[in-house]
Amino acid sequence: MNVKGLDFFFNPASVAIVGASPAQGKISNIIIQSLKASGFPGAIYPVNPKYAVVEGMECYPSIAAINEEVDIAILAVPAASTPDALKHAGSRVKGAIIVGGGFSETGQEGARLQEEITAIARERSIRVIGPNCMGIYDAVSRLDTFFLPPDRIKRPAKGTLSIISQSGSFAVTAMDELAAEGIGIARVVSYGNKADVNETDCLRFLAVDEETGAVAVYIESIEDGAGFVEAARACALKKPVIALKVGRYGAGASAARSHTGAIAGRYEAYRAAFKKAGVVELDGYEDFVNGCKAFGSLRPASGNRAVIITDGGGMGVDLADTCQAMGLKVPQLDVALKRELEAIFPPFFIASNPVDLTGSATDKLYAEALKKTLSTNFFDIAIVVALWGPPGLTDGFAGAIASKASSIGKPVVVCAPGGAWSREKNRLFMKYGLPVFPTPGGAARAAVILSKAKGVHGQS
Amino acid sequence: MNVKGLDFFFNPASVAIVGASPAQGKISNIIIQSLKASGFPGAIYPVNPKYAVVEGMECYPSIAAINEEVDIAILAVPAASTPDALKHAGSRVKGAIIVGGGFSETGQEGARLQEEITAIARERSIRVIGPNCMGIYDAVSRLDTFFLPPDRIKRPAKGTLSIISQSGSFAVTAMDELAAEGIGIARVVSYGNKADVNETDCLRFLAVDEETGAVAVYIESIEDGAGFVEAARACALKKPVIALKVGRYGAGASAARSHTGAIAGRYEAYRAAFKKAGVVELDGYEDFVNGCKAFGSLRPASGNRAVIITDGGGMGVDLADTCQAMGLKVPQLDVALKRELEAIFPPFFIASNPVDLTGSATDKLYAEALKKTLSTNFFDIAIVVALWGPPGLTDGFAGAIASKASSIGKPVVVCAPGGAWSREKNRLFMKYGLPVFPTPGGAARAAVILSKAKGVHGQS
Repeated sequence: MNVKGLDFFFNPASVAIVGASPAQGKISNIIIQSLKASGFPGAIYPVNPKYAVVEGMECYPSIAAINEEVDIAILAVPAASTPDALKHAGSRVKGAIIVGGGFSETGQEGARLQEEITAIARERSIRVIGPNCMGIYDAVSRLDTFFLPPDRIKRPAKGTLSIISQSGSFAVTAMDELAAEGIGIARVVSYGNKADVNETDCLRFLAVDEETGAVAVYIESIEDGAGFVEAARACALKKPVIALKVGRYGAGASAARSHTGAIAGRYEAYRAAFKKAGVVELDGYEDFVNGCKAFGSLRPASGNRAVIITDGGGMGVDLADTCQAMGLKVPQLDVALKRELEAIFPPFFIASNPVDLTGSATDKLYAEALKKTLSTNFFDIAIVVALWGPPGLTDGFAGAIASKASSIGKPVVVCAPGGAWSREKNRLFMKYGLPVFPTPGGAARAAVILSKAKGVHGQS
Repeated sequence: MNVKGLDFFFNPASVAIVGASPAQGKISNIIIQSLKASGFPGAIYPVNPKYAVVEGMECYPSIAAINEEVDIAILAVPAASTPDALKHAGSRVKGAIIVGGGFSETGQEGARLQEEITAIARERSIRVIGPNCMGIYDAVSRLDTFFLPPDRIKRPAKGTLSIISQSGSFAVTAMDELAAEGIGIARVVSYGNKADVNETDCLRFLAVDEETGAVAVYIESIEDGAGFVEAARACALKKPVIALKVGRYGAGASAARSHTGAIAGRYEAYRAAFKKAGVVELDGYEDFVNGCKAFGSLRPASGNRAVIITDGGGMGVDLADTCQAMGLKVPQLDVALKRELEAIFPPFFIASNPVDLTGSATDKLYAEALKKTLSTNFFDIAIVVALWGPPGLTDGFAGAIASKASSIGKPVVVCAPGGAWSREKNRLFMKYGLPVFPTPGGAARAAVILSKAKGVHGQS
């Protein structure tokens, strides 16, 4: 396997959609529409002998009939027709994305079919993503094979986080949620049954990909443990890598087998591999999203000493508990720092850790409290609890916090639970590139994840 | 202490607001406006010698000047003026709600002031809620002393869940979030420093309150452990009681002291008390909201055997892991049941647990899968993963699930992560009274909480 071997998947000059159909709602049709909507700048070739025109574009009877280079063939044909489609793509294409299911995830017959396509691809030096996958959503190259309607599943703007995932729906749901939270994405790869391209290949590509600043991985199974550790370690030395392994228990493990044909394996082995590779271990979907939000916007923390600033005493107490339960340090304020805060605070503010600005909080005092605490050598990270109830908090609050965060240069995690008003106002934080966590648990985990990645790559 | 002693707080015929002000944004003004906005049917008497009229109502120079019965005096005056205000309220009022801070949470001088008001109240047989609290939001009596603007903090509609809390901002944030999630509320009491009324008093009232179907408690400290266990147990025998104790670790415990003057105590003692009383222990703010959402809409589960129905394989695997890690059982399907499902499913659906309907899920097959599994004796609860991407899911999806849930009579927890489209569509579930959990972790915890409450009161 050539390290450079996957580049064309992420920068294709041309794609063919085999099985192209004019029928609205069909997978191939959604893909063609997504490519047009995303502004994919390369050539798009619909391929289907049944049609002359699809979505206003010339439709070719076969890939052979296209008189231009074709980098990638996207095969949207039934499982049984896939071997032939791949043979016909022949040496014309560098890679194929096989989105359909009906392979190793369905049992013996499907596994045989998958072996057949693997052999065909190897013979013709075609790299294959899939089968049983969503393929690629790439905000850099604007390739988008994720065949879910864009009105239902939003695509995030261009950012620096890349996601690689065995599960398509998992990646898609996370992506959709990140889009709603204002977090950008570089590349998302869903590789399903991994007939060829797997997490190791993707990690090797992403390690040297300049567009990717951090990598999140969803894993059901890894077949080549040593290869994974090597690739993940090489990647984690350059940028944060966070990973979720599912299928830990009986029901989950057997569901993983039905889902992508994965043999889940013992979780302890994965945990050891993550540790060896410097990969930050995640705990479930929510934590995956927490990690993506954290590394989609913030830099790693250089340690785990957190200062908490709140305008609600109870939420501050709960957050302090949660942080300490998760292994963060919540050190008391140095006496000089405490006095410095008391000098600018009204008497009923509490200059402690958590710093409690109460319902009389203002934008300015919040920002001052952040500056005076986080800019010292006592803290590596701040968690700002933003309860939007107090009338002293205005639309300038988020900007004031973001400005101090940026000048201090340490990560600031925003924890902002609440209802309609809060959810609307939280967009102001997102606008300034500060991810918002709706629960103390999520905010604390984000802080933990940010503090754990620093060990390996030393960015801080 | 008389068990019936608190009734008038929850059904007052008249309230006086001492320190009433016409100034917009002042606490007393917000309270008067909230009482008018909530449609409080009793008499409202602004009291302040400085004004003749406040918010269009006659303003009295003192409580003594009101020639009618006054059930409750809401004192919105500075801490130092509180003893006098309470003396002047005299024997005219049954109870006082003291919202201001500046008492035991601020140190020795404040503690002395609090002792003074406690003595005055005891002498005059006035029950006191507070000081340093939000008081009462009551969707039954429409009393609303929560002094945060209703545009910022939404009040939930009338429901059956009651919340009692030492922290005002914590209760308010949860309440606001529940309003956004379509969960109704019966009563919320924030009692702050607990000069008189505490969690034990409230539990005794709520145990016999016909409007309350379940009780959620936020605790920083309990002074009378034996009294609490007795009252909580009596309540939990009649309806689910769930509780969060904060201030478990150093930083949290010391923050609790600054917050409401609470001595947090050893967590193990609280845990043992909860167990003895049959109270379900909660773990942090998110879990508090999970529990409120669960018992705000659903009945307890008669056991912990969960069936998971999903349209995303990866999310199903993750949820199965999460359920099992939290102690739920995710049993495999009985062979006959599996065959029954396979008979109605297309071949690529997976008739297992999780049941995976894939991206080809439809409203009808989802509802059928729910009915065929949850109505058997194998399962106590269902978690329906609703990823809204598949085009076969329409606006009829939520109604189809709700209808089966209602006819089966067992709790159905909806897990629906995702972005803008999903968040909008999730309102359909809420409309049918099904609470929606945005993460597998939240959904699994809701299922755990629902299954834990059954032991005590035997509702199932």
